[in-house]
Amino acid sequence: MTQTLHPLAGKPLVLADTLRSGNAWKIRLACGFMGLPLARRTFDIVQGDLETDAFARINPWRQVPALLTPEGEWLAESQAILWYLAQGTPWLPEDRLAQAQVSSWLSFEQTQHMHAFAQPRLLIHLRQTAAVDDPAMVAWRAIGMKAATLMDAHLADRTYFVGTAPTIADVALYPYTSMADQGGYDLSAFPSLDAWLARMRALPGFTPLMETA
Amino acid sequence: MTQTLHPLAGKPLVLADTLRSGNAWKIRLACGFMGLPLARRTFDIVQGDLETDAFARINPWRQVPALLTPEGEWLAESQAILWYLAQGTPWLPEDRLAQAQVSSWLSFEQTQHMHAFAQPRLLIHLRQTAAVDDPAMVAWRAIGMKAATLMDAHLADRTYFVGTAPTIADVALYPYTSMADQGGYDLSAFPSLDAWLARMRALPGFTPLMETA
Repeated sequence: MTQTLHPLAGKPLVLADTLRSGNAWKIRLACGFMGLPLARRTFDIVQGDLETDAFARINPWRQVPALLTPEGEWLAESQAILWYLAQGTPWLPEDRLAQAQVSSWLSFEQTQHMHAFAQPRLLIHLRQTAAVDDPAMVAWRAIGMKAATLMDAHLADRTYFVGTAPTIADVALYPYTSMADQGGYDLSAFPSLDAWLARMRALPGFTPLMETA
Repeated sequence: MTQTLHPLAGKPLVLADTLRSGNAWKIRLACGFMGLPLARRTFDIVQGDLETDAFARINPWRQVPALLTPEGEWLAESQAILWYLAQGTPWLPEDRLAQAQVSSWLSFEQTQHMHAFAQPRLLIHLRQTAAVDDPAMVAWRAIGMKAATLMDAHLADRTYFVGTAPTIADVALYPYTSMADQGGYDLSAFPSLDAWLARMRALPGFTPLMETA
């Protein structure tokens, strides 16, 4: 396969993130895979950084990630940033149906997957304000296990979520699935999901959540 | 403006929906605006239609809408279906940043808007199992009013959400915002939002939720 230059190569990209945000990790993963340098501006939720007037100008929705694009505009929502980075590259197929299937998995991740994995991780592992067996955590995991079941079934005869090469659908689904154990999940019953996680980690340019992990 | 043929003109499109789904209405609105005929296959949640094996083959996530594309594939998630329909038309700008901004509002609608408007409407108006002032309904509306405030501020100096012409971002945000009063919302403090709703209703090809409303 010939290496072609990324349409954004050489242009400045700045990511507003927090240290441990899985949604922001998606963007760092994408840039690593695509060979794009990315400057980070890291905020601290606990310190109240997201509630300042300065942050409202970055994202009035007061969330990370947001990307400062070369056009000088701040772009919010992880899936929109992934879309921005991937257009015109193999990470987003041009075919109408394949592109819509990528969009479908990006939507699935935000609406039926992300919170069920992110909330137990946040409360059990990061804030340590919930126990693994708290009823609310058990309820989140019931939702997440349904999502994992669908993903594992989909991957049973596929290498990646859409088509035969990795796309931003895979990038979006990787972070919170890979950190599931921090929320008390046991995904050992899903061999296809596990093999996909290993394939993602083995891709050139893979970026860990923490640089010094 | 010259009328150009839609890339999907003349191809069969079948929508799996329910009678009153706002998410499915988005698809019918889009097809109306784009002049695309759409066949409906309408299911009944209360009758258990979405729990059958037959429906799992339409959408293993057991949700409407789903679109049967001319390729013979069922496509899930309203934003993915809108994307499928809009590619190569003025309803989805080609410019990298503008296209990502459309994606950002589609994500906003699903993650920070839709449930806050859909849940009170479902429980107060459709199922009639909650009162307007129930604490849970008040809590949903607090979230929804935050979304409405952001939308109104964004529209203060804009005609549509992205660029100067309507896109699928407008189509996605229209249904649940326009039905807000059914969930006990009072949006009269948002004049820009109200003017935008009126502009949407006035667009050629506008399709009401119910044919005989």
